Amino acid sequence: MARVINFNAGPAAMPLAALERAQAELVDFNGTGMSVMEHSHRGKAYDAVHAEALSLVRKLLNVGDDYDVLLLQGGASGQFALVPMNLLPAGKSADYILTGSWSKKAHGEAKGIGTVRVAASTERDKKFPSIPKQASLDLDPSAVYCHITSNNTIAGTQWFDFPDTGSVPLVADMSSDIMWRPTDVSKFGLIYAGAQKNLGPSGVTLVIVRKDLVAAGRTDIPQIFQYRTHAEANSLSNTPPTFAIYMLRNVLSWLDETGGLAAAEKRNREKAEALYAAIDGRPDFYRSPVDTDARSVMNVVFNLPTPELEAEFVAEAQKAGMVGLKGHRSVGGIRASIYNAATIEWIRALCDFMKDFHKGA
Amino acid sequence: MARVINFNAGPAAMPLAALERAQAELVDFNGTGMSVMEHSHRGKAYDAVHAEALSLVRKLLNVGDDYDVLLLQGGASGQFALVPMNLLPAGKSADYILTGSWSKKAHGEAKGIGTVRVAASTERDKKFPSIPKQASLDLDPSAVYCHITSNNTIAGTQWFDFPDTGSVPLVADMSSDIMWRPTDVSKFGLIYAGAQKNLGPSGVTLVIVRKDLVAAGRTDIPQIFQYRTHAEANSLSNTPPTFAIYMLRNVLSWLDETGGLAAAEKRNREKAEALYAAIDGRPDFYRSPVDTDARSVMNVVFNLPTPELEAEFVAEAQKAGMVGLKGHRSVGGIRASIYNAATIEWIRALCDFMKDFHKGA
Repeated sequence: MARVINFNAGPAAMPLAALERAQAELVDFNGTGMSVMEHSHRGKAYDAVHAEALSLVRKLLNVGDDYDVLLLQGGASGQFALVPMNLLPAGKSADYILTGSWSKKAHGEAKGIGTVRVAASTERDKKFPSIPKQASLDLDPSAVYCHITSNNTIAGTQWFDFPDTGSVPLVADMSSDIMWRPTDVSKFGLIYAGAQKNLGPSGVTLVIVRKDLVAAGRTDIPQIFQYRTHAEANSLSNTPPTFAIYMLRNVLSWLDETGGLAAAEKRNREKAEALYAAIDGRPDFYRSPVDTDARSVMNVVFNLPTPELEAEFVAEAQKAGMVGLKGHRSVGGIRASIYNAATIEWIRALCDFMKDFHKGA
Repeated sequence: MARVINFNAGPAAMPLAALERAQAELVDFNGTGMSVMEHSHRGKAYDAVHAEALSLVRKLLNVGDDYDVLLLQGGASGQFALVPMNLLPAGKSADYILTGSWSKKAHGEAKGIGTVRVAASTERDKKFPSIPKQASLDLDPSAVYCHITSNNTIAGTQWFDFPDTGSVPLVADMSSDIMWRPTDVSKFGLIYAGAQKNLGPSGVTLVIVRKDLVAAGRTDIPQIFQYRTHAEANSLSNTPPTFAIYMLRNVLSWLDETGGLAAAEKRNREKAEALYAAIDGRPDFYRSPVDTDARSVMNVVFNLPTPELEAEFVAEAQKAGMVGLKGHRSVGGIRASIYNAATIEWIRALCDFMKDFHKGA
């Protein structure tokens, strides 16, 4: 069948160009007579891919030389543990700002590893409809880091102005919105992101971390879990997930060739504005459950008058070639995940569908 | 160019059928209108792949119901830490049998996590030319487990009769020879394997572990690193490396369709016998550095009279379409890695080349 319109929350739609590039050379990479998957991670052919992937991360995000860029395994859930294992020694404390299920999970894992505080939580009736304002943060000036989740896939909210934590390093889980726009990396001590929303397939995790934090990291944890192990070995300490990194390279090449992050931001804002306008234009029927100034540009969540209508909406949309619109099972409703690879044409198709569905209901 | 003859040590050659299957459906998996990489790990399409991968592992290795089969991330190097983190509590000790660089690394990581003993080592002059005999093992009957590396990729040796550890659970790193033949899983407490030799691409790690060991595992480690977390969630606790698992499914499907592990053993023995015969047939020129009864069926290492001749051998072989023959940088020499996907035709081509090279030298 033709390619569908894919609003999956992650793993998510990837740029067709990145997939077609992989398909064309899947059994013969660059004329080497074998798949990129069959190349040694210590050989020249793979090494060029690995270097290009790292260099595209640095180029697109304008990462300074005082940061290490690591490509690891284990996803954001792995980082929920590795961040405190590396950066939170006994006798110190870290701050967590809770803006959704994923930041709660990060905080929950860290609690078992060291001393942590909640510097803010926007939870109300088991939902997280907002992003906290600077004045409401109860920050510990002696914290070893302050952790945020930059975009909340389930709640449908996003940080647009990052909190000012003074000299306390800001650590951000950017799994679901990394590279949606130009970002000043120098404001962060550490950024991590599972690839499967904006960067590539699942199975590779990007970590961008200030070198002084790597150097000061704990040494009383297993070597394989120390950031320094991977920083010193250029993420080749053990066999990396070569194909996932190759796909990340393909996705970032596409992002670079289509104008980089400034162009991505323009596209993403246009997409989100169109979709929120379709919601706001029919306020008796569609309703956004989150604060207007916290509305995510990546995950647009909304409700219909009844759960029955929401189920019908999802089913009818699927018949019209649009998949992945069912909200997360913990909150229900509708969710359109519109990461970098989602096109404005997809959004227009969804807006048209919303108009028709409203008329027909 | 045509596909080359690939003797890479890992990531390694994969069955062409598994790759071509992936290529054909890379942008439209099973008529769903998207790549398998773009499917949600919670959706039906991916779930069928995930279930089939797990079920093929169980079928091919005849895994009993008293074992969990897990598909994780982080490679064997991750398991070097996770095995003792889960199974080695304070106040207990674990045994390690050292037969090569990788078992030394496993032991080295475990040393930082708990109390470990060396029950045997075959190291002689920084090489590991043999596998220890049962009588030479200094086993601790109260150890919580005894760890071995079933095949040594660098040394070129392999365990054919596994050690009898009595009631002490045997833990094996089978990264480089899992599924080379039928194996009695019930002899093991835990088996782990990075996929990138016999199972698929790098980026997914197979763990087969007795359920009572999972249940008794430590709970004072991060949740993401507890085997129980993944056992309880059917390896879907967090987003799995979906494409790597899909490729593992493709490789295991091929293995199953080509006669399963009994047929694989027959092919592998025929391949190894042919290659060792080519070495032994010219004892003045080719020389195997390992004990005859320990010769690996997966990684055939040998030497030529001088390092210069070895370099020439590798270069000439490459011109003849054979890659990956250079021995590991730590030991030099020649290494032909002939995992399940290497064909008897490849071995015959190498044997012919060895004959010609000897004549011409």
